[in-house]
Amino acid sequence: MSNGIGVGLIGTGYMGKCHALAWHSVKAVFGTGPRPRFVHLAEASEELAARRAEEFGFERSTPDWRELIADPDVEVVSITTPNAFHADMAVAALEAGKHVWCEKPMAVGFADAERMAAAARASGNVAILGYNYIQNPMIRQIGELIAAGTIGEVNHIRLEMDEDFMADPEALFYWKSEASSGYGALDDFAVHPLSLVQTLFGDPTRVFAHQAKPYAERPIAGGGRRAVETYDIASVLFEIGPISGILAANRSAWGRKGRIALQIYGSAGSIVYDQERMNELQAYRASGPTADQGFLTVLAAPGHKPYDRFIPAPGHGLGFNDLKTIECHELLRAISGEKARVIDFAAGLEIERAVHAMARSHDEKRWIDV
Amino acid sequence: MSNGIGVGLIGTGYMGKCHALAWHSVKAVFGTGPRPRFVHLAEASEELAARRAEEFGFERSTPDWRELIADPDVEVVSITTPNAFHADMAVAALEAGKHVWCEKPMAVGFADAERMAAAARASGNVAILGYNYIQNPMIRQIGELIAAGTIGEVNHIRLEMDEDFMADPEALFYWKSEASSGYGALDDFAVHPLSLVQTLFGDPTRVFAHQAKPYAERPIAGGGRRAVETYDIASVLFEIGPISGILAANRSAWGRKGRIALQIYGSAGSIVYDQERMNELQAYRASGPTADQGFLTVLAAPGHKPYDRFIPAPGHGLGFNDLKTIECHELLRAISGEKARVIDFAAGLEIERAVHAMARSHDEKRWIDV
Amino acid sequence: MSNGIGVGLIGTGYMGKCHALAWHSVKAVFGTGPRPRFVHLAEASEELAARRAEEFGFERSTPDWRELIADPDVEVVSITTPNAFHADMAVAALEAGKHVWCEKPMAVGFADAERMAAAARASGNVAILGYNYIQNPMIRQIGELIAAGTIGEVNHIRLEMDEDFMADPEALFYWKSEASSGYGALDDFAVHPLSLVQTLFGDPTRVFAHQAKPYAERPIAGGGRRAVETYDIASVLFEIGPISGILAANRSAWGRKGRIALQIYGSAGSIVYDQERMNELQAYRASGPTADQGFLTVLAAPGHKPYDRFIPAPGHGLGFNDLKTIECHELLRAISGEKARVIDFAAGLEIERAVHAMARSHDEKRWIDV
Amino acid sequence: MSNGIGVGLIGTGYMGKCHALAWHSVKAVFGTGPRPRFVHLAEASEELAARRAEEFGFERSTPDWRELIADPDVEVVSITTPNAFHADMAVAALEAGKHVWCEKPMAVGFADAERMAAAARASGNVAILGYNYIQNPMIRQIGELIAAGTIGEVNHIRLEMDEDFMADPEALFYWKSEASSGYGALDDFAVHPLSLVQTLFGDPTRVFAHQAKPYAERPIAGGGRRAVETYDIASVLFEIGPISGILAANRSAWGRKGRIALQIYGSAGSIVYDQERMNELQAYRASGPTADQGFLTVLAAPGHKPYDRFIPAPGHGLGFNDLKTIECHELLRAISGEKARVIDFAAGLEIERAVHAMARSHDEKRWIDV
Repeated sequence: MSNGIGVGLIGTGYMGKCHALAWHSVKAVFGTGPRPRFVHLAEASEELAARRAEEFGFERSTPDWRELIADPDVEVVSITTPNAFHADMAVAALEAGKHVWCEKPMAVGFADAERMAAAARASGNVAILGYNYIQNPMIRQIGELIAAGTIGEVNHIRLEMDEDFMADPEALFYWKSEASSGYGALDDFAVHPLSLVQTLFGDPTRVFAHQAKPYAERPIAGGGRRAVETYDIASVLFEIGPISGILAANRSAWGRKGRIALQIYGSAGSIVYDQERMNELQAYRASGPTADQGFLTVLAAPGHKPYDRFIPAPGHGLGFNDLKTIECHELLRAISGEKARVIDFAAGLEIERAVHAMARSHDEKRWIDV
Repeated sequence: MSNGIGVGLIGTGYMGKCHALAWHSVKAVFGTGPRPRFVHLAEASEELAARRAEEFGFERSTPDWRELIADPDVEVVSITTPNAFHADMAVAALEAGKHVWCEKPMAVGFADAERMAAAARASGNVAILGYNYIQNPMIRQIGELIAAGTIGEVNHIRLEMDEDFMADPEALFYWKSEASSGYGALDDFAVHPLSLVQTLFGDPTRVFAHQAKPYAERPIAGGGRRAVETYDIASVLFEIGPISGILAANRSAWGRKGRIALQIYGSAGSIVYDQERMNELQAYRASGPTADQGFLTVLAAPGHKPYDRFIPAPGHGLGFNDLKTIECHELLRAISGEKARVIDFAAGLEIERAVHAMARSHDEKRWIDV
Repeated sequence: MSNGIGVGLIGTGYMGKCHALAWHSVKAVFGTGPRPRFVHLAEASEELAARRAEEFGFERSTPDWRELIADPDVEVVSITTPNAFHADMAVAALEAGKHVWCEKPMAVGFADAERMAAAARASGNVAILGYNYIQNPMIRQIGELIAAGTIGEVNHIRLEMDEDFMADPEALFYWKSEASSGYGALDDFAVHPLSLVQTLFGDPTRVFAHQAKPYAERPIAGGGRRAVETYDIASVLFEIGPISGILAANRSAWGRKGRIALQIYGSAGSIVYDQERMNELQAYRASGPTADQGFLTVLAAPGHKPYDRFIPAPGHGLGFNDLKTIECHELLRAISGEKARVIDFAAGLEIERAVHAMARSHDEKRWIDV
Repeated sequence: MSNGIGVGLIGTGYMGKCHALAWHSVKAVFGTGPRPRFVHLAEASEELAARRAEEFGFERSTPDWRELIADPDVEVVSITTPNAFHADMAVAALEAGKHVWCEKPMAVGFADAERMAAAARASGNVAILGYNYIQNPMIRQIGELIAAGTIGEVNHIRLEMDEDFMADPEALFYWKSEASSGYGALDDFAVHPLSLVQTLFGDPTRVFAHQAKPYAERPIAGGGRRAVETYDIASVLFEIGPISGILAANRSAWGRKGRIALQIYGSAGSIVYDQERMNELQAYRASGPTADQGFLTVLAAPGHKPYDRFIPAPGHGLGFNDLKTIECHELLRAISGEKARVIDFAAGLEIERAVHAMARSHDEKRWIDV
C-alpha cells in the first residue's frame, strides 16, 4: 500500500457522495495510513457515471458495476446503491478479493444478509457496514462514561429515531411505501439506534413490537390513490439482559429532521443525547449536594477522540459528513489489521436478526426471543 | 353561598398544603365565585391538626376525619391523605352531602374506585380528582391547537413521566416498594399522562404493557435487604382508535425531577411539551416554505386562559401551585353548576380502568382491550 | 401581633393584585409569623375600590388613600400605584408610623427618592421596595455559589432585560413614551437587573451609557403622530470595582417577554441565568477533565431555600407570583426585627443613583463616577 | 484552468489544515469549477514541511515561503501563518501574480493592512480573507430573512463572541498576552462578529469601547509572574446609521467554546443565533394571534444554500470545516469572475478600521466616528 489504496465507488446518490467526500478527506484529516486512489466509479448510466467521475475525481467510470469489481486496481469497494442490490454486489466484491464498505441496512431479506455475512467470513477480507452514527465522538464519549461506571449500572434505555420526509399525507406513493422495500420504519430507521445499542450495550435478547400506518393510502402520480404497504411508525419494547428498553421510530414525524434521541438511565446517573445536536451530550451524575446536581451539557471537544483530528479548538462542531470520514479511517485501520470501531457483516447480521424478530413479534402479537 | 363556601381539609402533607394554598388564592385570583371559609382541618394527631390549622388559617381542627365530615359548616371536602384512605373518606363525604375534591389516584384497588364513582353518581354532588396538570394553560392551548386542526389529524403520541426520587439503589425500602401500595410507576405516575391523554384525545382502547424493577432489593432500616415488590419502570404501547401511542414512566430516572413529556404527531404538524418547562410549548406547522419551518417555542401568555388571571404580562411564568388554584376554581364552577374542566369520579374511573388493564397485560403478556 | 398584622393596599392593578395574592398566601406557605388581616384597600374610584375589596377580601375600601393611611388598624401599607405617587404616599405612611412595601422604581425624580429614603430613616419603620427578582431561590443559589467561591473571583458580568410590549411601531403613543414618565428603558427596566447586581456584587462605581429610540414617533389616538420622548433601548458599560460589566435593556425587543438574562464570569467558572426560565440556573465549573466540563443545568429544588416552603418535590416550578410571596415573608421578617433579604429605601436609593448617573453619562457622552 | 488550479499552502497549523481540507473537498462537494492541484507547501522547517506535504498530499514542500510564491505552478496561495507574517506574504504573492486566500485578521498594524489592500487593488488579482462564519448557510438565511423584510427595519443588534482558552488565571503567559500580538479580544475576536455585521448591515459608523483585563499578571515558565499587556475582554457600543448595537468579546469566558451569539431586533420581529449551535437559527415574527407567537427554531436544511451540496436531508448538520469548503468555493467563483460572497482585502480593511477606532476610543474615553 506504499502508493495508496485503490478505491471503487458504486452508486453516487446521497451516500455515494458521502463516501466520496470521506475518501477525499481521510488522509489529510488523520495524517496516517494509505492515500486513497480514486480508481473506478460505477453508476446506472454511462453518462452519469462519467459526470460523477469528473466531479469526484475518479480515473475511470462504468455503467456496469461488475466491471468495477473486476478492475485489479480496485482494492476496496464502496457500495452505496439501493438496499436490494447490496447482497449481490457485496458478495461479488468479496469473492473477487476486495474489501467492502457497504451502506446499511445490509439487505431487505434476512437470507441475503446471511449470505453477505457468510461471504465475508469465507473471504477473510474486511467487510463493514455504514453505521456512521457510532463514529460520533460524543457517542464514543458516552461509551467511555458508561464503561467508567459514571452512571452506574444501566437499567433502562429509550431510543427514538424520527424524521418527517414521509409526514405529508399528500406526498405521492413511492417505493418506500411498497412492501418490497421492507417493513418501513423498522428496517429503514430502527437499525440506526440499534447500531448504537449494539455498540454501547449489546444486542436485544427479547422484543415486542407494534407497527402503525399514519396514512392508509397515498395519491399516485397519474391520479387515484394506492394503499400504503409499509409502516411509517414502529414502537418496540425490548430487553438486553437486565436492561429494559423502548425503541420508537417514525418517518412521518413532522418537525423531526435527523432525530436520534437516546436516554440512558443507570443506578448512579443518566445520559441524554440527540443527533440533531450532534456536538452535545448531557450527563447527570448523582453525586455531591442535590442542590448542585443537574444535567451537564458537554460540547464536543478535542478530548473526545477523534474530534481533535478535525479541529484543535472545542465547541466548533463536526458535521454529519465528518462521521463518514471517521468511519472511513476505521475501515482503513481494519484493513491494516488494527482493532477498529466498526460494525462488520457479522455484527450487522445481529442487527438484522433483531429487526426481523421485531416484525415477527408484530405479526404474532407476542414477545419474541432474539 | 353569599357568605362563602365552607371548606374542610383532610391531610396536610404535600397535597394538603397545596389544597390549602389554592383555597387561599382562588377568590383573589379569579375575582368571582364564593369566598372560601376555612372551617375544619383533620390530621392524624390532635397536636399536628391544631398546628396546621393555625398555619393554614382553619377555625377548627380534629384528629378524626369523620368529625370533619359531620361538621354542618363544611360544604366541600379536600381529601389529600394516602391513597388507601381515599375511598372511605370520599364515600362518607358524598353520603353526608358534601362536595369532594380528592387527590389522585382514586384508590389502590379498582373495586374501591368503582365504589367512589358509584357514590358520586348516587349523591348528585360534585366529586373531582386532583389531576392538576390538565389545568396548565399550555395544556389547554395544546387542546385548542388540536381542536383547531393546527396539526391535522393526530396519528401518534408519546408520553413520558419520569422522576428520580426512587433512583438511588441504596435508598431504604419504604412503603412505595410494597405491593400494597399498587403496581409502582403504573399507578403512581402513568395516571398523570393518562389524565392529559383523556382530556386531549380520550381513553386508550387497547394496551400492551411491560414493567421492570431497576433494583431487585433495597436495604432496610435495621440492616439487611428486602425484595422490592413494585415496578419503578413501566413501558406501555397503546391505541386510542386510530392513534398509536407509547407511554413510559420511570420513578428511578436520575436527573428527571418533574418530567411529563408529550410528543403529539399529526398529519399537518406536531406539538411537544415538557412539564419541567411548564410555561412553554413547542409547535411545528407544516406550512409555508420548508426553509422557514421549525418548532415554535411559545411562552405562556395572557392569551392562554386563565394565565391572565394571575399575571397580565406574558412570559413571567406560572408555578406548580398555581395549577391547583385553577383546579380549585374549576371545582367551584362545577359546584355552581357551570360546565367545568375537571376529571370527575366517572372520568377518573376510566383512567383507573386503563391502568389496571395495563397491569393485566403485563401479567398475561398480551394486548388487552380496555 | 398575636392576632395578625393589619394590611392596607393602595392600588389594585398588576402589582396591586400581586401584593394581594402574596398577603393571602404568605402565612400558609411559611407557617410562621403573623396572619395578615385585610383591613383597608384604596383605589381611584369608590366603585372600583369596593369591587376590589370584595375580590381581594378587604374589610374596608376608599377612594382616598390618605384615609387608608389614617386608619389605625393598618400597620403596613402596600403601595402599588404609578411611580409618580410613590413618594407622597410612602412619606405619608412612614410619618403615620406605618411600615411600607412600595413597588419599584422608587420615584421618577431623584429628589423624590431621596425624600423617601430620608423619611424611612427618620421613621425607624421598615420600608422596602418590590424588587422581587432577588427573591427567586435560583438567584439566592447563584449568590451562594459565588460566596462559596465556586466560580472564583468574578471579573465580568453581562445583564440584559428585554420585553416587547413597546415593540410594535404602530402601537399608540401612551404615557410611557412621555418624558414625564422617566428616561425609558433605563428606569423602567434597568433597575431590575441592577437590583440583582446590588444583591450579588454591590453597586456600580462608574458608568457609561447610550440610549436609543427605535421609533422616532408613534401614532396618536385621534390621528396624526407624536414624537417619542423616551428611549426604549439603553446600553450601558459599567464597573463595580474590578468587575467590568455590560447592561442592556430594550422594551421594544420582539419575542422577549420577561427576559432578565445574566452572564457571570469568574476565574474558576461561570453562571448563566434567564428569568424566562426562572426555575433553572446554569453553572460551569472549570475543574476535572476538560472532556467532562460543561454547563450544568440545575432545576429549582427544595435545597434552594425557600422553594421547599412551596413544594417538597424538585423540578415542579415556582411562578412569578411566588416571588412576591417570598418578598412578603422577608418584609414580615424585617418587621419582626430579623435580618431579612430586602432592598430597603436606603439600598433602593443607590439603584436610583446609578440610573440617574447613566442618564447623565448619555447626555455628557462620558464615563460618570457614581 | 482545464487541468485544475495550482494551490500553494503556507502554514499548516489549525487554519492551514483547515485550508487543506477545504481544497480536498471543494470539487467533490460542489461538482463544478477547477480541480485543485496540490502543488507546493511551505512550513517553518524542512522536515515538518515534508511531513505535512505527505499528509496533505502536496507535490513539493519547502521551508522558504518565497520559494513557494516563486513556483510558476502555484496559482493561488493560502496564507495561514501567524498574523505578523500576513502582510509580507500576501503582498509578495499578489505582486507575483497569484490569487491570495489569507486568514484573518489582516495584520497587527493598520498600516500593514492598508499595504495589503493597496497591493490587492494594484494587482487585479483576487485577494480574500478567511472570515468563514459568513459562509454558514444559517447566516446566509438570516441575511435573506432581513432582506425580505421578515423582521422589518432592524433597529438594535447585540453581538457576543466568547471562548475560554485564556480563562485559566494560572495558564502561562504566552504571546497572546504580549502587546505585540495586538489589543487582545478586540482584534483576536471582535473581527469575527464584525465580519457578520458587515455582511448583514454594513460597517459601524461610530464606536465607544472599553477593554478590561480579568487577570493583571500571569505566571511565566521559569517561575515568577509577568504583567499581562493585552485585554481579554472588550465591550463596545456602536452605531450603524440608525441601528444601535453592542459588541462584547471575552476570551477568558469559562464555559464558552466557540460562541458567536447574535441578537437582531427589528420593527416586525427578531432573529437569534449562536455559532455553538451553528445548524440552528431562531426567528420571531410579530404576526398572527399573540397566543401563537414565539421563537421558531429552524434547523439547517437543503433550502439553506449551499447546505444541499453537502447533504440532501435536512437537520443532519454541517461542521465548522464545511464552512471553509464553502469559502474555498466562493474564492474559486471569484477567481472565475463570478460575483462571490467573500470579504476581500478592501472590505477587510474596513473591519480593521473599525477595530482600531475602538481601541482609540478606549484610550480617549469618547465616541469615535469610524
